[in-house]
Order: sequence, then structure tokens, then C-alpha cells
Amino acid sequence: MADVKKMAIVVHSGTLDKAYPPLMLAAAGGASDLEVDIFFTFWGLNLLKKKGLKRAKLPGAWRMGTSLMRVMIKRTGMASLPELLEGILGTGKVRLWACTATMDIMLVKKKQLIPEVTGYMGAAGFLDIAADCDIQLFI
Amino acid sequence: MADVKKMAIVVHSGTLDKAYPPLMLAAAGGASDLEVDIFFTFWGLNLLKKKGLKRAKLPGAWRMGTSLMRVMIKRTGMASLPELLEGILGTGKVRLWACTATMDIMLVKKKQLIPEVTGYMGAAGFLDIAADCDIQLFI
Amino acid sequence: MADVKKMAIVVHSGTLDKAYPPLMLAAAGGASDLEVDIFFTFWGLNLLKKKGLKRAKLPGAWRMGTSLMRVMIKRTGMASLPELLEGILGTGKVRLWACTATMDIMLVKKKQLIPEVTGYMGAAGFLDIAADCDIQLFI
Repeated sequence: MADVKKMAIVVHSGTLDKAYPPLMLAAAGGASDLEVDIFFTFWGLNLLKKKGLKRAKLPGAWRMGTSLMRVMIKRTGMASLPELLEGILGTGKVRLWACTATMDIMLVKKKQLIPEVTGYMGAAGFLDIAADCDIQLFI
Repeated sequence: MADVKKMAIVVHSGTLDKAYPPLMLAAAGGASDLEVDIFFTFWGLNLLKKKGLKRAKLPGAWRMGTSLMRVMIKRTGMASLPELLEGILGTGKVRLWACTATMDIMLVKKKQLIPEVTGYMGAAGFLDIAADCDIQLFI
Repeated sequence: MADVKKMAIVVHSGTLDKAYPPLMLAAAGGASDLEVDIFFTFWGLNLLKKKGLKRAKLPGAWRMGTSLMRVMIKRTGMASLPELLEGILGTGKVRLWACTATMDIMLVKKKQLIPEVTGYMGAAGFLDIAADCDIQLFI
């Protein structure tokens, strides 16, 4: 039983366009028995805050176009970020990790994060997981 | 014959500075018998549009410096992005995939994309390919 | 003795927030016997310039907040970027590579780079290393 594939993703960005890929990949992975660990660090930690996914914006000059982008996404029938998260947690194959160094630096308390967070760890903990994965991505 | 190395790249950005690395890596890989699959998603899909590579700009505040950057690149004898693409397609080792979710959201039609596109797929299709690769990068 | 894990990282960005992850991962990796090769390309090459790590700024609109971020990082007891670099070089497990194409394009001379640079190479050289690694990240 050595053939379960595993994926480790670092989410460093906190913008809407960079939040979709890890959640879409986790949804696709969880649906096909891939084990997925997602490590939220730096700006990415904002996505684990309560209402964080709901408030994610497009980056830089596109920021003002965020509402329009949400409409265009909804029009296709694609899930919103909070709906995607709910779906991937339902697979039981996806774990969400908060970066402890980022929490220290940005003064983020555990109670500010969503209760679905699996746990808290630093770079060494992530590396331990990633080294045994088949796919690693830094987003 | 199990020893052909494979690389899967996600191109999420559409800027000139992020367009060079996947094409340079694909050129280097294709020249040394590496199989390369590149998946163009979100802003990256713009690079698969007709004249998309030719129109790619530097990001944010550097945007105004794009023409100068092109001159500096040309001065070294390095290929332009369209020339690089032509070269990597000539190796027969590189495949270009357009993200169907992005096409839906951004209302992009197949006829707007260059004819060299290998095919169209979503996150699940990309994961199937990536899970069997030796190298995966998200750019 | 085939079980030493290896990691290859491309550093494409030159901003403070993107400089920490490769150095933190290299520090954690070097401390646990992981071999680490970091390839600095495009904007990332600036981090290999003398005083480059010291001068790294936050990106775009956050640029003005760089000094504050440095204070918040220091407050937690976390190392500065130059201190981190010194630490990872001390492990003897981490190699720093400068991208030759970037040096050509941006007119960067070897004497402008820190003497700790391990060597100089292009995309093909990096691919050779990366293809034999357990973890590859593009930052």
C-alpha cells in the first residue's frame, strides 16, 4: 500500500488569484485520493483568518476589479473560495497548516484563525512533510 | 526504458519576467530529452493568446521598462519569447496546455489561442500528469 | 547511502518577503542533513549582490512598510536575512548559484556578487541538479 500519492503546497500569497490554485488543486487531489498538505505562510496566512477567503482581493492594480472577477467566477458555476474550502475539508484528505513564524511576526493569535486549521508548524515541520511528497508547489 | 525524466510547470503569471523561466527551462529540458508539460492558468493563459508572448509586459512599476528590458535581452543574443516558443515546439518534447476553468471565467475562446496549444484541461488533468513527473514548478 | 534528501529552489523574486522562505527552508534543511541548491535568477539575483539581502524591500504598495516589517521580525528574535545566510553557509549543505543569463542581461559582474556564491550556471545546469532532487520549488 505504498502507492498513495502526496502533494505539499506552500501558499505564500494572500490574493484571490493565488488562493484559487491551491484550493482547486486540493479539491481535484482530494477527489482522486491524493493526500494534500497546505502550509500557509507570510501573506498566505491571511487566508486562514476568519473571513480571510471571503475578503481576498486581486493584487496591485487589479484590486478594484475583484468584485467583477467574483461575478465572472460565479457566472461559470465555479465555487467561491469558502465553498471550495468546505468541499476539500469534506474529502478528509487535505490538511491546513499555519506557519508559526508568520504568526509570531504578524502578531496573529490562534483564535483569529478558522477552527479548521489542522495545526501549527515552522519551516522544518513543512520540510519533513514535503520531502516525502510526490508533488511540491510554492504558490 | 523508465528513465526519461519529466517536468510539469504551472504558469500562473502573464508577465515577461515570469514567461521566460518556463520557456527557458522547457528549452533546456527539451534539448536534453526531458519531457515537459506546461499548464497555463489564470494570468498565464494570456501568454497562449495570439501575440500574447509578444505583448507580455514587466509587472507593476516596471511595466514602463518593458521595451528597455527587451533591448537588453536582445543585446545578449538571447531569443525573444516567440522565438523561444518556436524552438521548444521544435524539440517535440514540450506540450502546452490551456486551463479550461480560466477559459470559462475569462471568456477566452479556443480560436483566440495559438494553434500550437496541445490541448485543454482542468486542475485534475494537470495533477494526473504532475504526479508522475520528477520536477514540478509553479511559476 | 542513497537516502540523503535533496532540495532545489529557484529564487526569481528579489523582495524581502520572498527572500525569507528560501533561506528559512535552507536553514531548516541544512540543519537536518538535507542538501540544498538555490538558483538565483532574474530579480532574485539582486539578493546575491553585495548588501543585496540588507537592501531587500517589501513589494509594491508595501514597500514603505519594509522598515516596520524588519522591526517586527527582529522583535520575535528571528534572524535578519544576512544572519540567516551566514547560518546556512555554516551548515556546509547549501550551495548558491547565480544565473548566467540574468548576469548577461542585467550587466551584473561577478565582482558585484558576494564571494559566498558557489558558482554560475544557466537553466540547463539547474535542471541537471533539480532532476535528481526530492523537492523543487520556484519562489
